[in-house]
Amino acid sequence: MNVLIVYAHQSSGSFNAAARDVAVEVLTEKGCTVDVSDLYAMNFKATATVEDITGGVKDPDCFSYAEETKLAWEEDKLSSDIVKEQSKLKKADLVIFQFPMYWFSVPAIMKGWIDRVLTLGFAFSPEKRYSEGMFRAMLSFTTGSLESMFSPNAINGDMTVTLWPLQNGILHYCGFQVLGPQIFWAPAHVSRSDCNTMLNGWRTRLQNLLNEEPLAFPPLDYFEKETGYQIKPEIDEKHATEEFGLTVGTHLGKKVPPNNQMIWAGSGYRLR
Amino acid sequence: MNVLIVYAHQSSGSFNAAARDVAVEVLTEKGCTVDVSDLYAMNFKATATVEDITGGVKDPDCFSYAEETKLAWEEDKLSSDIVKEQSKLKKADLVIFQFPMYWFSVPAIMKGWIDRVLTLGFAFSPEKRYSEGMFRAMLSFTTGSLESMFSPNAINGDMTVTLWPLQNGILHYCGFQVLGPQIFWAPAHVSRSDCNTMLNGWRTRLQNLLNEEPLAFPPLDYFEKETGYQIKPEIDEKHATEEFGLTVGTHLGKKVPPNNQMIWAGSGYRLR
Repeated sequence: MNVLIVYAHQSSGSFNAAARDVAVEVLTEKGCTVDVSDLYAMNFKATATVEDITGGVKDPDCFSYAEETKLAWEEDKLSSDIVKEQSKLKKADLVIFQFPMYWFSVPAIMKGWIDRVLTLGFAFSPEKRYSEGMFRAMLSFTTGSLESMFSPNAINGDMTVTLWPLQNGILHYCGFQVLGPQIFWAPAHVSRSDCNTMLNGWRTRLQNLLNEEPLAFPPLDYFEKETGYQIKPEIDEKHATEEFGLTVGTHLGKKVPPNNQMIWAGSGYRLR
Repeated sequence: MNVLIVYAHQSSGSFNAAARDVAVEVLTEKGCTVDVSDLYAMNFKATATVEDITGGVKDPDCFSYAEETKLAWEEDKLSSDIVKEQSKLKKADLVIFQFPMYWFSVPAIMKGWIDRVLTLGFAFSPEKRYSEGMFRAMLSFTTGSLESMFSPNAINGDMTVTLWPLQNGILHYCGFQVLGPQIFWAPAHVSRSDCNTMLNGWRTRLQNLLNEEPLAFPPLDYFEKETGYQIKPEIDEKHATEEFGLTVGTHLGKKVPPNNQMIWAGSGYRLR
């Protein structure tokens, strides 16, 4: 098994560094080959620019990043730093994104990795979006806020809503099977002993991580291409009597299913 | 009135450039002073690093970006590019973020602006988060997907869920009053004439933009600091008989209020 950790923290003394180290240690012990893309250490270029394509672009006057990089991917003209990350990704059976949550999302340097490495054509296409891929991926992150603030009754709102664009819009969209997120709540605001408890929880989870069931998303064939990927009437009908919608995003005007972006369907396992 | 447009597209021939130009033109005609931060043209640094602080940091071994930049802001030690953007922001009565949606969010270069310019202490603090500010802000963006794909019944899910981390987690968190988003659906996939219709809709909206009611968010005093910013029992009780929750995020386990992140409460105005 090959694991890729895409890691974004500036400091080797951080909690994120410790969480990365625990993952490397446990997964290596279990026989995995672990590769780490340490984005700050690599000085990874975050911005999507014309320099990402070598040897000139097709339409410099009306540059479309998605279209031009798709073409460059087809013609082996992507810049070497992108190609290098894509080759790591192709090998990986599991990708772990390890980061501090910045502004309800990933830090810009990690968004840059996502924007630049997940090239149209390579990572997805209109035909194969939301198709099941072979790889697994997951988010592992620290928060600044306490857990109490991220509930359906609290000021930051339901964490499952915040995670939807990342887990559905990026990971599931590319065809990853998405493992439940590993959330380290506010390590900067708790005691060292509570930090160790969180790291030990992660250590325990990692022992069995490769056997975990992924989060549940509706399969592609629930939707109808002809209607612009609206849910098929027969599926909608089948769910008419259900209390909850299918997912946080495709909620069908019903209640948002609790923990839909946190734990796999039917599991009693809470990621605390 | 001062308007700041934070703009992120690589090409002057793009639809985003045209949307920016329409905004500059109409708002200038109406007597506003309009400033544009053209992030790609400025080669804006996206990554949050130790270089953002001049003259050394407090704890290099365990660098915390939020804490160190807060201190640097207090001591006038932030790097000059951040200071420049903050001074534009301080002057602005309205901030428009103009961008192509990349991966259900802003492009990395714009996330970098958010991560680096909205410094702890300057843009928010634990005491003043979600407090009403004096300024207004809004998102104006193009999508790759058609509108049909972003509904509660469709494959990308409810657009209001996708917008929650941006509009609540960044704009409302900092105390901006958030105007409804301007969404240009899939300009790359429609005719030139449909593109012009979208631009004309934006032109019309801009005429009265400064008088629009902002989106509705529950006020800070709905939440109780002592319980970790959970909703106050009396507020929860008052909403017990309502069909919908308060917002997409703070949904109280009820149905997500339709268009909560799209149109201001009670308005008949649809942003199409």
